[in-house]
Amino acid sequence: MAEIRIEKTAHPKEKPDSGNLSFGKYFTDHMFVMNYEKDKGWFDPRIVPFAPFEISPAAMVLHYAPEVFEGLKAYRRPDGSVQLFRPQENIARMNRSAERMCLPQIDPELFMEALLALVRTDSDWVPAGEDTTLYIRPFLFATDPKLGVHAPSMCTFAIILSPVGPYFPEGVNPVKIFIEKEDVRAVRGGTGFAKCGGNYAGSLRAGERAEANGFAQVLWLDGVEKKYVEEGGGMNIMFKIKDKVVTPALLGTVLPGITRKSVIEMLKSWNIEVEERLVTLEEILTGIKNGDVEEAWCCGTAAVISPIGEFATEDEQYTIGGFKSGPLALKLYHALTDLQFGRTEDSFGWTVRVA
Amino acid sequence: MAEIRIEKTAHPKEKPDSGNLSFGKYFTDHMFVMNYEKDKGWFDPRIVPFAPFEISPAAMVLHYAPEVFEGLKAYRRPDGSVQLFRPQENIARMNRSAERMCLPQIDPELFMEALLALVRTDSDWVPAGEDTTLYIRPFLFATDPKLGVHAPSMCTFAIILSPVGPYFPEGVNPVKIFIEKEDVRAVRGGTGFAKCGGNYAGSLRAGERAEANGFAQVLWLDGVEKKYVEEGGGMNIMFKIKDKVVTPALLGTVLPGITRKSVIEMLKSWNIEVEERLVTLEEILTGIKNGDVEEAWCCGTAAVISPIGEFATEDEQYTIGGFKSGPLALKLYHALTDLQFGRTEDSFGWTVRVA
Repeated sequence: MAEIRIEKTAHPKEKPDSGNLSFGKYFTDHMFVMNYEKDKGWFDPRIVPFAPFEISPAAMVLHYAPEVFEGLKAYRRPDGSVQLFRPQENIARMNRSAERMCLPQIDPELFMEALLALVRTDSDWVPAGEDTTLYIRPFLFATDPKLGVHAPSMCTFAIILSPVGPYFPEGVNPVKIFIEKEDVRAVRGGTGFAKCGGNYAGSLRAGERAEANGFAQVLWLDGVEKKYVEEGGGMNIMFKIKDKVVTPALLGTVLPGITRKSVIEMLKSWNIEVEERLVTLEEILTGIKNGDVEEAWCCGTAAVISPIGEFATEDEQYTIGGFKSGPLALKLYHALTDLQFGRTEDSFGWTVRVA
Repeated sequence: MAEIRIEKTAHPKEKPDSGNLSFGKYFTDHMFVMNYEKDKGWFDPRIVPFAPFEISPAAMVLHYAPEVFEGLKAYRRPDGSVQLFRPQENIARMNRSAERMCLPQIDPELFMEALLALVRTDSDWVPAGEDTTLYIRPFLFATDPKLGVHAPSMCTFAIILSPVGPYFPEGVNPVKIFIEKEDVRAVRGGTGFAKCGGNYAGSLRAGERAEANGFAQVLWLDGVEKKYVEEGGGMNIMFKIKDKVVTPALLGTVLPGITRKSVIEMLKSWNIEVEERLVTLEEILTGIKNGDVEEAWCCGTAAVISPIGEFATEDEQYTIGGFKSGPLALKLYHALTDLQFGRTEDSFGWTVRVA
């Protein structure tokens, strides 16, 4: 395995006020970068000062979007040390996303070493304020300076870090979600399961429309029949239906979320039954009306758990649990964040210390 | 309208051997660039030496792929002058693609002026060899250095130029096409009609698999039922069925090709009936077997007309017209290229001279 070269900045930046962080706006002093050429494989893994890339106007990434990314966080523990949450899962998912986009695989050991070395280098950027974290963004894109539509042969893999504030600055509050029936996020055989740029570009329009109308997210339905619930904006979605938790199965169109996976494992450890299956919109709306759907929430790295207070179409509103955050959603939120921040013991073995 | 500033290179490049051009590999001395910020609109339209962009590692285009592009060509006429083919259509389509991706609109007049000024500046790069052209690539991407998933507020619009060799160096020859039944290119409500990066990234894997097995392209089927024919690789597709020409209708999943549109208009001017409608794979395969499907071809800017000699699945081959380029495909190819290169009169008013 190639050794990671470290070139420290001569001009450390002033850190932003930790009470005034938003999401993904400030970046730390350093970044990890590594290059790929088909004949050479990956080379020159390095930690260097955060700085712009020089990218050819003909680079594939600017035209055909062969690009995948990940998102995870570094957490400041009460004892001041720093830890990551299930980074192995992000590494494995990025390689699965890359396969779909004809991008090269990254050695998981080197990827892990890069994560740890970079967070270690900028560890004083991990904020200590309540529910503040250092967001970690690994990303991989093709740079071939050629306009032919072919599998990439030149790539850049980078990791950047951004201190982020709490997702819920005023405590966990439920959101309103708009049921999107025009735009579609994914279809089987497409790229829905991959964390690739194109999925997000295609989702911007519906997201903006929803936000302009006072909604936090859209509810994505399947692209074939617009009958099945798939995701809530850029997050996975779950429902507490009587004594079970139900969530859309991973059939190629839904992102295999790491928070999703962790919630399922945690619920099972609490002896709560979880069903991963097709979930029709009809079942959910009927269940909200008759009270069977007691709670609903989105889950993802950014928000962890985001309770849903209402689903809406242009004509109708479906309010859940009196538009209050439900007890199971809150229990999950606290159990997960306590574990992530090292406030409770990690009985699952999910955290990785940054030495 | 802002005036286009021109900064000429002090170091003109050596031009590549015109007998040895491939596609999109060499670039001319200059490029057009213009920037956008939400509060300022578009600003600083300029022609500058072709050089790398400085792009923030956090730029949206590297993560969420808000990016659209166009492709057209400049042709050297027998009298030595240079002309474009239907550039207004590319300008209009790029603005439609941009709308789907929440990217800003570009003033069509300024876009046209930029095209003409850039091609004029690098007009000695328009090659003169038979069927060689100067490929023109306008593209637009978001540069906001923020990781939030929101509509872009900072963008770059650029145009680059690449001298390209003939698509068929040994004359127009039919190709084999693999019927793709696993990966899917587009679904209604998605981004299929837009010329956006994500559509191409998602198509790479199937294209590579097909090429590795000796096929030129894949045949894309609809994403819902995998029953209807949609596109042939990155091109539109047409069939001569008895005395009519049939092509998939534009219902949101198929790219509204400018060559497609021109072929339809040309066929109608020849009093050949054209049907734009749903076309099932079953109809095509049965029609090939019983002889009703007399010809098939792909059409697009790069190839103009690419006759199809065979469709294949893993188990079966369906050969059309004895694997020869059909007479109507060849007639279209010659009529279109003669018009594009100014070898015949442009009775449609499709060409625009670069003064």
